[in-house]
Amino acid sequence: MSEKKIPYKIYLEEQEMPTAWYNLRADMKNKPAPLLNPGTHQPMTAEELGGVFCEELVKQELDNDTAYFDIPEDIRNFYKMYRPSPLVRAYCLEEKLKTPAKIYYKFEGNNTSGSHKLNSAIAQAYYAKKQGLKGVTTETGAGQWGTALSMACSYLGLDCKVYMVKCSYEQKPFRREVMRTYGASVTPSPSMETEVGKKILAEHPGTTGSLGCAISEAVEKAVTNEGYRYVLGSVLNQVLLHQSVIGLETKTALDKYGIKPDVIIGCAGGGSNLGGLIAPFMGEKLRGEADYRFIAVEPASCPSLTRGVYAYDFCDTGMVCPLAKMYTLGSDFIPSANHAGGLRYHGMSSILSQLYDDGLMEAVSVKQTDVFEAAEYFARVEGILPAPESSHAIRAAIDEAVKCRETGEEKTILFGLTGTGYFDMVAYEKFHDGQMDDYIPTDEELAKYREMLPKID
Amino acid sequence: MSEKKIPYKIYLEEQEMPTAWYNLRADMKNKPAPLLNPGTHQPMTAEELGGVFCEELVKQELDNDTAYFDIPEDIRNFYKMYRPSPLVRAYCLEEKLKTPAKIYYKFEGNNTSGSHKLNSAIAQAYYAKKQGLKGVTTETGAGQWGTALSMACSYLGLDCKVYMVKCSYEQKPFRREVMRTYGASVTPSPSMETEVGKKILAEHPGTTGSLGCAISEAVEKAVTNEGYRYVLGSVLNQVLLHQSVIGLETKTALDKYGIKPDVIIGCAGGGSNLGGLIAPFMGEKLRGEADYRFIAVEPASCPSLTRGVYAYDFCDTGMVCPLAKMYTLGSDFIPSANHAGGLRYHGMSSILSQLYDDGLMEAVSVKQTDVFEAAEYFARVEGILPAPESSHAIRAAIDEAVKCRETGEEKTILFGLTGTGYFDMVAYEKFHDGQMDDYIPTDEELAKYREMLPKID
Repeated sequence: MSEKKIPYKIYLEEQEMPTAWYNLRADMKNKPAPLLNPGTHQPMTAEELGGVFCEELVKQELDNDTAYFDIPEDIRNFYKMYRPSPLVRAYCLEEKLKTPAKIYYKFEGNNTSGSHKLNSAIAQAYYAKKQGLKGVTTETGAGQWGTALSMACSYLGLDCKVYMVKCSYEQKPFRREVMRTYGASVTPSPSMETEVGKKILAEHPGTTGSLGCAISEAVEKAVTNEGYRYVLGSVLNQVLLHQSVIGLETKTALDKYGIKPDVIIGCAGGGSNLGGLIAPFMGEKLRGEADYRFIAVEPASCPSLTRGVYAYDFCDTGMVCPLAKMYTLGSDFIPSANHAGGLRYHGMSSILSQLYDDGLMEAVSVKQTDVFEAAEYFARVEGILPAPESSHAIRAAIDEAVKCRETGEEKTILFGLTGTGYFDMVAYEKFHDGQMDDYIPTDEELAKYREMLPKID
Repeated sequence: MSEKKIPYKIYLEEQEMPTAWYNLRADMKNKPAPLLNPGTHQPMTAEELGGVFCEELVKQELDNDTAYFDIPEDIRNFYKMYRPSPLVRAYCLEEKLKTPAKIYYKFEGNNTSGSHKLNSAIAQAYYAKKQGLKGVTTETGAGQWGTALSMACSYLGLDCKVYMVKCSYEQKPFRREVMRTYGASVTPSPSMETEVGKKILAEHPGTTGSLGCAISEAVEKAVTNEGYRYVLGSVLNQVLLHQSVIGLETKTALDKYGIKPDVIIGCAGGGSNLGGLIAPFMGEKLRGEADYRFIAVEPASCPSLTRGVYAYDFCDTGMVCPLAKMYTLGSDFIPSANHAGGLRYHGMSSILSQLYDDGLMEAVSVKQTDVFEAAEYFARVEGILPAPESSHAIRAAIDEAVKCRETGEEKTILFGLTGTGYFDMVAYEKFHDGQMDDYIPTDEELAKYREMLPKID
């Protein structure tokens, strides 16, 4: 392999790091639909949301017009502990695939939370601290978000209460232990600590839990405890705002070398990584300054964009949260027990849902074993063992690069490598042992959950 | 926290990365003692060593005079996938400790092997490949070295056979699974695959294995299989040579900002990290160009420098390896079962042993619970969950920084953060649950093993 001008890894200098988050909504002609009060079906007011979320975060959540929000200095300093994250030129992958395509990935896994989730965790914890709160509550599924929030809270001296989906709690004791190292309290959900947990346990005694259920418990805990608020790691507008740091760094790094991606790929569960990665590029597209292809990659076992409907739905199982308009499979949908890793939320960020509905973004779904095949291939070639979630984007990027080999096109492919798979070795083991299936929900199943959607005018 | 001129992380540019390894032996007046043939007690010849190690590596092992060895381009390209590693200014730790000391650490954990071991693994695998070998054999204790070698072999298409100390094999299934992801074959040691393994099992039926025993098995496997050689992750001169990349990068980064460390601290098991980190600095000291304090930090449960003797000893339990002169506890010494993580080898690199014997380096031993206390403190403050091994250095660095707080000295402290603890959560759990003890071998115990040292003139 000969010397090339573009380095294997592009790191920004500290002074090149973003000083403001970019709010994509400011450039959207069709704004994302507002959250609705589940009782009145009227848009949620700042006052109503203030019972659940911190004040500053409510402002960020509701603001569809301000293009840039300054990143407070304390958050910028925290970012400096693990950012800038590298933008990697995948020379080895290109060579192995014998593709004329140029492949780049923005790697967010080089921190102890193992993913990009820390970018929003520190922001949300910071505003909670600033408001003088005692602590925050949240839910976690695969565990990255819970870990990230634990780290942020520990740093700021905030109490952190995590409801962890019971099956993850049992299958991932090491994730629990990391959160414990950071001083968080972790409860398997559903639990007997909340009314909604008790209710769900009474109705489904053997349940191993779900994200929607853990959200309900975390929200209840926040609103019934003085000095606590609820925080969420994805889906919300505020989270996509914070995650714009990924896209902003990426764009600065690419611009330094005069590189323009043709296609930008990200995995999509609730949309936090994808929304953050594409933000400044989508902004250019919306303003007519540049054009890009955007591809959201979701699991075939939880296909909210590719097989869901665009409608108002509950964000949680207990129906304690506001209603959100989004591509959704229905709030009672839970992916097959054999589904590994995250990307298991029934809905999708309202911002991304609107962009997808407007035809500004594509979506594909990929099968689980194809994802793990790509993950292992990537690990061996690029030396990073990826998270199952991130590997959805790897799968799609490899597929695009192989197409380029066939057509001879020298496309520039950019994807988001959201995290590492060090706490997902049980899933890798299943894959190696041939015990991983590719269950895909039937049309009948999806129709059943669709019928349960709330009726909104 | 106000803006400071020195960034949180100093990354070198790709073109600033070392192009040659530095061989500290070239500047040592008292050279490390040669390896001896266990039968004749004569220095091992290149021909004899060639049966066990690759030719190029034998040259590197025996060469006490050449100061620099060019790093082959393929290895440099592999390094670019995960290097340069950041030199981190521990602003948050300094602030939390309220110390006037300036603390820096070179962080080697941002790769999937989770440690600095990859630096030598790729070098050793490269020379094996270049020699046209089919594969390599090795042993692994805590698992970092086995993982690193698996990654390097997978990248180069070499077969990789790992003997993993049985208790680690059983306690760290995820480490095994990572190696499997990289296509390595992993056998718990002692095994029935080798004569020496059978013999040890016959004599000690319930044994959970030891590093010395796994080394014997790996060496036997290599010398009895056509096209295979043995590779080792620490102790050897060649390994310290490759690991000099750590110190060289560190020195370049410090020089860019005109920083001169007063004290340089590293954890020491076999000596690979410490020897690599200090190499260029010790070179300056040996040449009379500068002075530094060097501190080797070892576990109180396996105190080869602080309580061992400087003598020729066997490198392995089966006595199939050459004899090495080193600070040693005796080749049958095995640390207490409660000892977590690596740093469990009975001896110490011959290079470091000689430097220590010449009074050029200090050594301290630290207790296990003190180490984990430092680890958790560091994780919360600096955001990186450290490996138990690395945490020995953290402990000593914190102790030095606290001394500075008491004396008011503005010392510059540099330490090596060799890796992450993501696969060590069982040990963290033990610590959190108060189930970790601080067993320290008695003088009588150490004397017993000392009596078993071979008698060499």
